[in-house]
Formats: sequence, structure tokens, C-alpha cells
Amino acid sequence: MNKLLIVGSVAFDAIESPFGKTGKILGGAGMYIGFSASFFKVKSAVVSVVGEDFPQEYLDLFTERNIDISALEVVKGGKTFFWSGRYHNDLNSRDTLVTELNTLADFKPVVPENFKDAEVVMLGNLHPLVQISVLDQMTVKPKLVVLDTMNFWMDCALPELKEVIKRVDVITVNDEEARQLTGEYSLVKAAAKIQEMGPKFVVIKKGEHGALLFNDKQIFFAPALPLEEVFDPTGAGDTFAGGFAGYIAQSENISFENMKNAIIYGSNMASFCVEKFGPERMINLTKEEVLDRLQQFRALTQFDIALENE
Amino acid sequence: MNKLLIVGSVAFDAIESPFGKTGKILGGAGMYIGFSASFFKVKSAVVSVVGEDFPQEYLDLFTERNIDISALEVVKGGKTFFWSGRYHNDLNSRDTLVTELNTLADFKPVVPENFKDAEVVMLGNLHPLVQISVLDQMTVKPKLVVLDTMNFWMDCALPELKEVIKRVDVITVNDEEARQLTGEYSLVKAAAKIQEMGPKFVVIKKGEHGALLFNDKQIFFAPALPLEEVFDPTGAGDTFAGGFAGYIAQSENISFENMKNAIIYGSNMASFCVEKFGPERMINLTKEEVLDRLQQFRALTQFDIALENE
Repeated sequence: MNKLLIVGSVAFDAIESPFGKTGKILGGAGMYIGFSASFFKVKSAVVSVVGEDFPQEYLDLFTERNIDISALEVVKGGKTFFWSGRYHNDLNSRDTLVTELNTLADFKPVVPENFKDAEVVMLGNLHPLVQISVLDQMTVKPKLVVLDTMNFWMDCALPELKEVIKRVDVITVNDEEARQLTGEYSLVKAAAKIQEMGPKFVVIKKGEHGALLFNDKQIFFAPALPLEEVFDPTGAGDTFAGGFAGYIAQSENISFENMKNAIIYGSNMASFCVEKFGPERMINLTKEEVLDRLQQFRALTQFDIALENE
Repeated sequence: MNKLLIVGSVAFDAIESPFGKTGKILGGAGMYIGFSASFFKVKSAVVSVVGEDFPQEYLDLFTERNIDISALEVVKGGKTFFWSGRYHNDLNSRDTLVTELNTLADFKPVVPENFKDAEVVMLGNLHPLVQISVLDQMTVKPKLVVLDTMNFWMDCALPELKEVIKRVDVITVNDEEARQLTGEYSLVKAAAKIQEMGPKFVVIKKGEHGALLFNDKQIFFAPALPLEEVFDPTGAGDTFAGGFAGYIAQSENISFENMKNAIIYGSNMASFCVEKFGPERMINLTKEEVLDRLQQFRALTQFDIALENE
């Protein structure tokens, strides 16, 4: 079984949406990525940090999913990273109400010995220097390194971000971030510019409008599943990345053709994430539901135009 | 060969976009639908009205495409409908600068005798009473009636619009119009409500974000082709409708499976329309280019997840 090394925040979130409000619940990119990837046949570890206030029951959710948390550092007397946000009515935009970095402020990731040869590395959204530090600790060159990042690092750590972008095979950003990073409005042009920065594969996430995968002149598109209700978009992008990386790690195939499947699986996992607050839906999700929904993605996108009509 | 009856405006447009500005050029929903449908093996007629100022060379563009214009009335001393608009920087929104209804104000559509038994009727965006009048003139019930409309009629002729909606098989609206018509934000819920109003098939156009087709519990999605440059979105929705109706009329098959293909063809045709100002690209388009682009749509959307991964 292939190894998937994940680095990303494990956190407390408090979320307000038009549908309600949570107290402090489990959050963090590393958590969403890990939970999503756990639906695939991979051996995964999450490198992260939390405080002493982080409950054992949350740690148990990782181990129940066979996620190695030997490198999930619990800082004595420390407090866990806390983020709070409020979504607007259309759920496409949000205001950050609180960001308390806490233990994440001094996070020095330590890759476990037995994951220094992981086939796939998933760098969740964190300071680019933390992401670089993880890559520097690998003793065997990974088959695939996937980077997720966001506009915040483009604003305040662009040179470091460009360093890590140089060293990855796949980058995932949303449409606005792709535009900000390149100064190009057209996503086709933006993806071409990002490829010049290093990554052979560029994934542009458009939220409810789906995701695009670019490689050279090739483009693939996966729609988001049209849902009756979108409840809470928190973690959808991370869950997408976890499904993508988990599927790639399981299938040991980094061709463009197989990445199409990975994008579909990423969209599949994300479609569940948004159905409840925080990770609630992911926690109760079954493999059967994932496979059923894969059929829905097929029905949604596959067509067969007969040759006699051409 | 099946008959396709089209009703829709034939007009002068003047367009401003971030890429430039046109003088008075050929425009109108009926023109875009007709030109798009002319790429399919159908016998089509456009029912419309223009003024004496409408140049012969524009009329020739219809006849060169084998579009019957015996019911394209030229009003002596009349002036042709004129619309002028300016697109904003993102091309997703626009301001109307001028609307001169002219001959369109008193338009009484007359369906040609030999099209009163047309298999497919495409009701382009016009006053709902004009659309109803066309349906009332049919002597044989069409196999499929497709309706395109817009928010303007929801604002000022809603009861009449609801009458025509009751009588059609397929409706095409954009996402905002679907929301306005139903009061539902979720497009899945909006499509369900529109189906209750009459049409078995609901097409929701999302511009650069593609199009959704709904029928009962089934959903199909066609992306817009990601383009390096979108030049002018004028007529893209009509061109989509023309490709949809043209393909359906050619293939004589109104199953959901075949409508998937029609949606793909509609998106295919629309992807050309936006590449130049007005109908310029459609006028110079070849059948070979359409078929080439169909391969791009296949590559963009088709995937093959092997069973062993499930």
C-alpha cells in the first residue's frame, strides 16, 4: 500500500452560515484532507500541531480512520489553532471573524521516519516555509507532490510561495487565486503561466462551478454535483484535495488520464463535505455512499454522440 | 429531413466590450438560432420582422444557409429593431444603452403554411403572446417545443409567460432567471419547480460555467469550453438554443439521453459564437471546426474510472 504524507492544520472552527451556527468544532485543512483520503487504500500520516485543549475523542477520529498521528504534535499547555467565520447568503463568500494561530504560530513540522519515503505528499494550506520544510525532510523523491495554497500567502509570503510552487507537481488553487497569482483573467492563460512556474499539473477549483485540470494543452473539467442544499462550504477545497491525493496514491498512476479520475473523486468527496456543518458528514460517510455518488457523477457528465450524427 | 420552425428577433446590434466597439451589425435571437441550427441537417424557417433599412446582404446570409425567410417580413418604410449594449470588464454583466423596438413593436408572426407541421419549434426570446401565437398556428402538434425567455418578461408579462411555459416541452433560462421565476436559490429546487409549471425538460444556462439539463430526478451537465479569450457573449445563449434545437430536429429523438448530446452541441456552437463580435465567427464557421471541437468537449468531460478501483 502506498504512503500518503499530509501536512496541514488541525484546528477548532466556529462557523456561521445562513443555516445556523456551530460552537467550536473540529476543523483544519490537515483534518479534512486526512479524513477524505482515508476512503482510499493508502497508508496516511498527518503532520500537524494542536494544543493540550484538543480532545482525545478528536484524536480518536484520526486513529479510527487508520491515519498515523505520530507526527501530530500535542503542545503541553498550548492552545489549538482557532478560526471562526461567517458565510454570506450565497455561501460563495465569507468574513473571517477570528483567527488565533496559537500553537500553529511556531509549528515546526517533523516528518515521521517511516514517511520520509512516501510516494505522495499532500502539502495542505500552510505557510510556504512549513511546506518547504516538509519537502526538505523527504529522503526519497516522492512520485507526486501536491500543493494547496491560498491568496493569503500571495499577499504576505509571495517569494516563499514561489519557491514551493517550483518544487511541486500539482498545484490546487481557486479561480480568484489563479488570477491573483498570474495577473491573467482567463483561466486558460492563468493555468499556462502557473505551469511555467513549475507544476506540470494545475487544478483550478471553482467551488459550486466545478474544477479544471490543466496539463500542457490538455484540459479536463469536473463539475460540482448539483445539490438541493449546500449547508457549509468549510473544508470543501481540502476535502477535494484529499480525495484527489488519496485516489492518486491508491492507484499509483500519475498520468493525465488517471488524474481525471482523481479530480472526479475529489469532487465526489467534496460534494459530501458541504452537506453538513464542518466534518460531520465526512465522519458518518460510508464507502458505499461514495461509490453510489460516483455513478451520479457518471450520469451527470458522460454522453455518447453516435458517429452517424457527425 | 425534419422541419425546425424558429421565431425570434432579427435585429441591428451595436456592441461595446473591453475589446472594442462595433457599429450597427447583424443581431437578434432569431438570427443566432437560425445560423446555429443551420449546421445540422434540418429544414428551417425563421419567422420574424425587419424594416426597409435591413440590407439585402444580411437577408442573403439566411438564404445561403438554406434558412427559409418567406416569413421574415420586411415592413415598408419601417425600421429594424435596434439594441445597443456595453459589457463590463468580466463580460458577465452588461448595460443596455439603447432599445428601439421599431417594427418589432407590432410584430404579428405568421407561420408559413409548409411549416405548420414542423417537428420542432424553437420559440426564441420574444413577448410571450408572440410565442403563444406561433403555437396556436401549428396544425400538427410538434414533437418538441423549446422555449427561451428572459427576466424582462418575468418582470412585465409574467401571467402570459406562465401560459406559454405551460405549453412547452423544454425551457431554457439562465441561473438568475431560474431563481427569479421560482424564488428558489438552489438550481436543483428551481428546476423542480419549473417542471411543475409544465416543461418536462429544464435547461439552466450558466454562461462560462456551463449548462444543466434537468428531467425528473435526472441531471446532466455540459461545461462551457474553457477559452483563452472570450470576446463578446452577445448571442451565446441563442446560439446554444439553436445548436440544441438543430441537433434534436436532425436526430428525431427526444429522449433524455439524446438531449445530453443536444446540450453538448449547444455548448459547442456557443463556444464559437463568443470568439468574435456578433455573428462574425458563426458566419465563417465550418462543419469541420464544429466536429473538431466536439472532440475537445469529449476530452474535456469524458473519463473512465476502472472497476478495480471501486
